[in-house]
Amino acid sequence: MEKTVEAIILVTCPDQRGIVARLASALHETDGNILDAAQYTSVSTKTFLQRIHVSWEDSSTTRDSVQCALNPLIDELHLDVQIRWRATPNKVAVFVSREDHCLHDLLLLQRDGSLLCDIALIISNHAELSCIADQYNIPFHHIPVDASCDKDVEQAQIELLEANNIDLIILARYMRILSSDFTQRYDGKIINIHHSFLPAFAGGKPYHQAHCKGVKLIGATAHYATAKLDEGPIIEQSAIRISHKDEVVDMIRKGSDIERTVLARAVRWHLEDRIIIHENRAVVFE
Amino acid sequence: MEKTVEAIILVTCPDQRGIVARLASALHETDGNILDAAQYTSVSTKTFLQRIHVSWEDSSTTRDSVQCALNPLIDELHLDVQIRWRATPNKVAVFVSREDHCLHDLLLLQRDGSLLCDIALIISNHAELSCIADQYNIPFHHIPVDASCDKDVEQAQIELLEANNIDLIILARYMRILSSDFTQRYDGKIINIHHSFLPAFAGGKPYHQAHCKGVKLIGATAHYATAKLDEGPIIEQSAIRISHKDEVVDMIRKGSDIERTVLARAVRWHLEDRIIIHENRAVVFE
Amino acid sequence: MEKTVEAIILVTCPDQRGIVARLASALHETDGNILDAAQYTSVSTKTFLQRIHVSWEDSSTTRDSVQCALNPLIDELHLDVQIRWRATPNKVAVFVSREDHCLHDLLLLQRDGSLLCDIALIISNHAELSCIADQYNIPFHHIPVDASCDKDVEQAQIELLEANNIDLIILARYMRILSSDFTQRYDGKIINIHHSFLPAFAGGKPYHQAHCKGVKLIGATAHYATAKLDEGPIIEQSAIRISHKDEVVDMIRKGSDIERTVLARAVRWHLEDRIIIHENRAVVFE
Amino acid sequence: MEKTVEAIILVTCPDQRGIVARLASALHETDGNILDAAQYTSVSTKTFLQRIHVSWEDSSTTRDSVQCALNPLIDELHLDVQIRWRATPNKVAVFVSREDHCLHDLLLLQRDGSLLCDIALIISNHAELSCIADQYNIPFHHIPVDASCDKDVEQAQIELLEANNIDLIILARYMRILSSDFTQRYDGKIINIHHSFLPAFAGGKPYHQAHCKGVKLIGATAHYATAKLDEGPIIEQSAIRISHKDEVVDMIRKGSDIERTVLARAVRWHLEDRIIIHENRAVVFE
Repeated sequence: MEKTVEAIILVTCPDQRGIVARLASALHETDGNILDAAQYTSVSTKTFLQRIHVSWEDSSTTRDSVQCALNPLIDELHLDVQIRWRATPNKVAVFVSREDHCLHDLLLLQRDGSLLCDIALIISNHAELSCIADQYNIPFHHIPVDASCDKDVEQAQIELLEANNIDLIILARYMRILSSDFTQRYDGKIINIHHSFLPAFAGGKPYHQAHCKGVKLIGATAHYATAKLDEGPIIEQSAIRISHKDEVVDMIRKGSDIERTVLARAVRWHLEDRIIIHENRAVVFE
Repeated sequence: MEKTVEAIILVTCPDQRGIVARLASALHETDGNILDAAQYTSVSTKTFLQRIHVSWEDSSTTRDSVQCALNPLIDELHLDVQIRWRATPNKVAVFVSREDHCLHDLLLLQRDGSLLCDIALIISNHAELSCIADQYNIPFHHIPVDASCDKDVEQAQIELLEANNIDLIILARYMRILSSDFTQRYDGKIINIHHSFLPAFAGGKPYHQAHCKGVKLIGATAHYATAKLDEGPIIEQSAIRISHKDEVVDMIRKGSDIERTVLARAVRWHLEDRIIIHENRAVVFE
Repeated sequence: MEKTVEAIILVTCPDQRGIVARLASALHETDGNILDAAQYTSVSTKTFLQRIHVSWEDSSTTRDSVQCALNPLIDELHLDVQIRWRATPNKVAVFVSREDHCLHDLLLLQRDGSLLCDIALIISNHAELSCIADQYNIPFHHIPVDASCDKDVEQAQIELLEANNIDLIILARYMRILSSDFTQRYDGKIINIHHSFLPAFAGGKPYHQAHCKGVKLIGATAHYATAKLDEGPIIEQSAIRISHKDEVVDMIRKGSDIERTVLARAVRWHLEDRIIIHENRAVVFE
Repeated sequence: MEKTVEAIILVTCPDQRGIVARLASALHETDGNILDAAQYTSVSTKTFLQRIHVSWEDSSTTRDSVQCALNPLIDELHLDVQIRWRATPNKVAVFVSREDHCLHDLLLLQRDGSLLCDIALIISNHAELSCIADQYNIPFHHIPVDASCDKDVEQAQIELLEANNIDLIILARYMRILSSDFTQRYDGKIINIHHSFLPAFAGGKPYHQAHCKGVKLIGATAHYATAKLDEGPIIEQSAIRISHKDEVVDMIRKGSDIERTVLARAVRWHLEDRIIIHENRAVVFE
């Protein structure tokens, strides 16, 4: 018995009549079966976005043959189409510093099959978390950061990322700022967790800022990293109640629960190709 | 300039290959433009469900002409199709007893355009809330309930509902139990709000039950009313924290906030034809 | 049979040993019975804050006699003590513009006994909501605002507030900025609802700002109004999930549910004397 | 410089006038300083409950000397007083089966100082999780369960618990039912996590039950284990939204996030002596 093959097709194009039907027909003609389809039309930008999950019973179907079959439609309707072939899992690098709650969560979820990816390596500016990497048999690269040579550090990181064909970089409480060269090189491929509900408390020490303002809610934000610090497309956010009794240390403890949950959710959506970035927003087809 | 016409098409059928593409094509051939489409496949029942929002620029398109165009496909693929023509708003009857927080909310939301419907009448077993009906110029019918003649009461209610061509009945804290004859007659057309997260605390006085059990969360459930009391398909639920300090009276106050929110959300989804009932579950295409 | 009398005593003082016991003893000596006591020590400012709910069976006890009994302790321990005598409910003025969801909620809650206060008047810069005031038989004062004479407007408002001995001003979506003279005059006596989780999206049109940033949560904040716009002590906040599908109009609808809930909660805590403002934070003894 | 000593004093007694002042005075006379005090009066049972956090600068103060000082008051006012001396951390045993998300969380939180306790041993009816225990250098005891000899199993468990002077047993997804002899022996000392918002879906496979009912919320409940299965005092609950799209496997994944959070919170409150069980309810002084 032959296995089916599957793909996620992400479409962005000017909104126009008939687009849903014509895409569905074109995929039908490749003998593809639409397992799931979700769409969104941005009213302000007059743009149509769609995520289509397709399977083919004929296992000789390839990414290229599907691309070929769609090309005429792509040209005619000015579609931006990404075909994510579901053959091999994404290769992931996790960047960490000293805090380990997000890292632990990612490793456990991956091990349990909740995150379909291959965590290929862990990179850190500190040595502390190498023992966790050891527990899970994941290569750990300690690249100390010295302000005078940030460029060299990033060069070393990039070499590791390229050597491992990394598809996604997760900043799991990595406390260094990446250069705009770096973020542009991996545009749409770096997910960061920030411990506030952005845009509130962007920058450093958000819990201290929150304490100072006397807020009654704290939050966490997972977003794509871009050149503008803490301003990339927001993927997921969550918040929890605090009270005047919570000192910064309590906020850190309470916040760590939502940081890891929010990050894990964002990573899962990315790995399942549920996100299209459109005009600096993350459209998430949950 | 001619106006477009719109419809929501709700489809239920055995899961099969090609269904999405073939429906999209059939609608395309009627010159319909698919504004939105969402689907769900129940793995356990091998059933495909879809909600399609279609518009036609040719305003002479009618419900019947669309039905005709779809009939061959309906026969061939064994589809259960409901075409909800978006010409006139649903006519709604609200049943109340003495509590008014849900009623107030429905009236305000309808007035503000958040609930697209015509609230045609209010029916109550008590006279107290007639003044609210007066404020909004909605006919109020006081039909007192006497245990000995529940049948007559329901007969009077049915006459009013039929005379007004009511499409949806909202039980907005109506404290009487409806007969199974009544719920079957209006199957899928009665939405009730229950003040607990069902199935916990079904039946009477749920906040008293909750207090007795010492729970730390209370909830509310909007569901379709069926012959089995409090067991109809659940449309929406929400919960909030309480503590040991909350007496029953506090639970009633805190709960009323979520009751009205949950009920309003369920009613909106129903009015926007976002719900398909499948095997005693409400599939909600949010 | 004589009725008991009750008071809430709010204490702020430098943290020091023995304070709880000495206050309890001093109140015991007035024959007061402590029904509830809650305390908080600010570590950073080394300040002790306490809310004590006391009753006296001897109904001839007065605010003055209690004050006298506490005076030696107040002097010795450098206490800042506020005695809120629970004889007559607070007199409240509600300021509104055109939106009515918060106003409706306050009126309904007050009527149902959930807000122990006397809503003495409604002031608006628009005439639209006068009919709601009429429904509840509350005097409505339409004071149109013309940019050239803000001072006269505030003068007219102040005259009404003074004439009615107003204890609390609720800005229930009042869309004008108050002068710093005004906010200082009623320091700690003006509660505003802002439709974002401050400090994010302070200033005008927060839902538009939120939409622009592509956030996945929107919120509401009830705070005391101070001279610095949207920077007064935060009393309560809440947030709800939104998605890319939510346009500004949907945010407005979804947000209105939490605005009214958050405002009502903040007002209730204020009316129950549960709040002490300390260093621009609202300490809430829930 | 001598260190201060501290205690948490938990008081339960018939409600009566003057109790707060007299307790505060009695503690003052021992030279104790009240760092925090919180109280609750159950209206229905006319019972007064209080949690008092006291420190003494004289480090020669002992649990016995405080007990002695309070004895006259205890006799006179019929107080039930528990003095929890804060010298040594609680000794904890964790019971697990095959699932490890709750165990991991407890170990991480304990290691980070968020749970002030000594995790002395892990007991399991399966061998799988021994490697985790090894990572943290905690003794792991595999006691396989065979239906025919439950008594022997519990006997072996009890011997381990006694030998280690265990103060608290945490059932971190331990999938066996304990005998009523066992739960009575450790009354108020066993915390269980149940993966539903009890009393809904008590017993086995709650996510399957929830799926079957088509609920829109799932929850988790931490409670003290008693002879009546899943009916002991509820310490903490939380819930999250699900939709028709969530199969049982998704519920398990989403639920595991709240299970561990709810369990950790309940355990922390217990370890900080914030809970008084009163009439089968857990009064939590947060």
